[in-house]
Amino acid sequence: MKRIAILGSTGSVGQSALAVVDAHADRLQVVGLAAGENADLFAAQIARYRPRVATMASGSALDRLEQSGIPKATFGAPGRDGLVEVASHPDADLVLCASSGTDGLEAVLAAIEHGKAVALANKEVLVMAGGIVTEAARRRGVAILPVDSEHNAIHQCLHGRTGSELKRLVLTASGGPFRGRSASELTKVTAEDALKHPTWRMGRKITIDSATLMNKGLEVIEAHWLFGVRADQIDVVIHPQSVVHSMVELTDGSVIAQLGVTDMRLPIQYAFSYPERWPTPMPPLDLARAGRLEFDVPDTNAFPCLLLAYRALEAERSLPVVLNAANEIAVARFLDGRIGFGSIPRVIELTMDAHRPAPVATLAEVRAVDGWAREYSQDVARGVELNV
Amino acid sequence: MKRIAILGSTGSVGQSALAVVDAHADRLQVVGLAAGENADLFAAQIARYRPRVATMASGSALDRLEQSGIPKATFGAPGRDGLVEVASHPDADLVLCASSGTDGLEAVLAAIEHGKAVALANKEVLVMAGGIVTEAARRRGVAILPVDSEHNAIHQCLHGRTGSELKRLVLTASGGPFRGRSASELTKVTAEDALKHPTWRMGRKITIDSATLMNKGLEVIEAHWLFGVRADQIDVVIHPQSVVHSMVELTDGSVIAQLGVTDMRLPIQYAFSYPERWPTPMPPLDLARAGRLEFDVPDTNAFPCLLLAYRALEAERSLPVVLNAANEIAVARFLDGRIGFGSIPRVIELTMDAHRPAPVATLAEVRAVDGWAREYSQDVARGVELNV
Repeated sequence: MKRIAILGSTGSVGQSALAVVDAHADRLQVVGLAAGENADLFAAQIARYRPRVATMASGSALDRLEQSGIPKATFGAPGRDGLVEVASHPDADLVLCASSGTDGLEAVLAAIEHGKAVALANKEVLVMAGGIVTEAARRRGVAILPVDSEHNAIHQCLHGRTGSELKRLVLTASGGPFRGRSASELTKVTAEDALKHPTWRMGRKITIDSATLMNKGLEVIEAHWLFGVRADQIDVVIHPQSVVHSMVELTDGSVIAQLGVTDMRLPIQYAFSYPERWPTPMPPLDLARAGRLEFDVPDTNAFPCLLLAYRALEAERSLPVVLNAANEIAVARFLDGRIGFGSIPRVIELTMDAHRPAPVATLAEVRAVDGWAREYSQDVARGVELNV
Repeated sequence: MKRIAILGSTGSVGQSALAVVDAHADRLQVVGLAAGENADLFAAQIARYRPRVATMASGSALDRLEQSGIPKATFGAPGRDGLVEVASHPDADLVLCASSGTDGLEAVLAAIEHGKAVALANKEVLVMAGGIVTEAARRRGVAILPVDSEHNAIHQCLHGRTGSELKRLVLTASGGPFRGRSASELTKVTAEDALKHPTWRMGRKITIDSATLMNKGLEVIEAHWLFGVRADQIDVVIHPQSVVHSMVELTDGSVIAQLGVTDMRLPIQYAFSYPERWPTPMPPLDLARAGRLEFDVPDTNAFPCLLLAYRALEAERSLPVVLNAANEIAVARFLDGRIGFGSIPRVIELTMDAHRPAPVATLAEVRAVDGWAREYSQDVARGVELNV
């Protein structure tokens, strides 16, 4: 029996993770849960899975949870402290970090320090603190199992192959809802347009990231930390059908790819079952029915966020933190209808330009750069807004 | 330094193998060579690679070789005895069997009995004597490394994964030059039409096998023996671009595929370098340039040879020997212009119908069934000829 703690259980990945637990109730047990603000759904999850510890993002959310009849005895502290409490609970063997944004950072480090395996569905953790987190995992001999379908695919493709066999990673990108549009056509798109993702159903922030290709940029940075490869060893290829989840090119030019249906339960189950592999109730991939798989180079003119991510990765140090923070602010402003789609990369770039990259060795340093970048990009976004 | 013996060095695979030796002269050395009848090319190969033993298919071929100035001292016996001599030469670490047809059978067994790794580019060996060969390899603890691009791909995809993780193999097939044609359209095609293969350059017999899909049928039987899977765990999918070389589906539905350029040097080098992986001078696969990969189910109405192969595999025992022998005869008659394309499966099926499957435990039994099937299918082919 593997005992699981889930950070972000009411989100899209969290709900899929609980579906995996349902399908393998004989092998998986939920011992900890953490959610954001959705107290109704969280109350139902607690009633069903009876975790030993549960918490939410705020005191007011916990109050609503108590009103739903959940006994206070299982409550952890609200917010980040509670995430850390759930992630380091002595009964947990594996912690799935699927909380959104940067809140999971301390919790992931706490899980690692307590020797727990980490299934990582949250990009921001490695983008902000990849060096700190991977060094801690190495020191503690703890596995970080990627749940993002692309990195999960690469983990499956490598299957123990060593770095000396590895030449290049190829991350596939659906291209998002605006694939094929020019930069000028993109000035008119709305948040509503951007939220219609062609292949994956996901949260709002990540869906916009997918439309700007920043999602892929964050994945490039994530891949650098997970697999120890340089920026120039990571390529992105547009693949609208999202059937090939990613690939590795080996030293002799042979390419190993992982393919599958687009269902998050598969990479989650892979992480939960690793190093075993369990059956699933899902229908298999039918390539003959899929018919055709297309591949193309990304249009970095129309989608400059991808280049901004490469620039941040090459500078390393603190610039990825700035990229990530400015992106969160810009996306939030876009979702509020306050800046245009084309202004997202502008806000990020202007914030990056204003920052002098410096080493970040502690979470406090990461948080400081993150705070600066959020404030600065707010100002930039307001300026852009006024110019609209 | 790995010391290599090559059976079939003047053929298409043999020449590619020597190109791999050229590219890695610091790691590979040729110690034995065997060829068919092309004495001129073989003389040049001997002069260049200076093997310790060399032989050809017949005494007359060896006479021509002597006239080319090659000293008789390095000659082995002609024919099958010579293949055995080369394959079991004490200096060889690995034997590449790329001789055509069934001549390599005794040589492969001799290599295994002498504890040498076998790189297998010859389908007939496993189709005729899969049980005998794989049992001998298991007993001697010897690796059989598949060079056929499909099985080589599966070997790379599995990469040490055990049978319990494996649900299904998916062999890709280009579909050959007649993909998309109906059974009635196929009655008119000529040997010349059939020899125009869209993606791979190969010998004449295997090119016809590719046009009838018998090549894929033989590969299904080969896959059964190489990877220990049942007939119902092996699927064939048409993939005209030949970029995906084959795939494995794992227990959770995840599919691992191997992709690459269509160049036989890659699987040959894989077998020569295994378990290492060496660089190649070839350009990498450019999927964005490839653009589009298509997949479809095979049309077994137009290409019944594939079903005949499944039927032979399910019956096991001696029926695959009959399938293979009758196919060789039928293809030879078709290449001579004496029977039509649609008569190839008819000759095979009538020969299979006339055979009562029995266990085959020794090479003598295999040769006896093979001999019967060749004679019987000759008669069938003559009858078909008269009816044309």
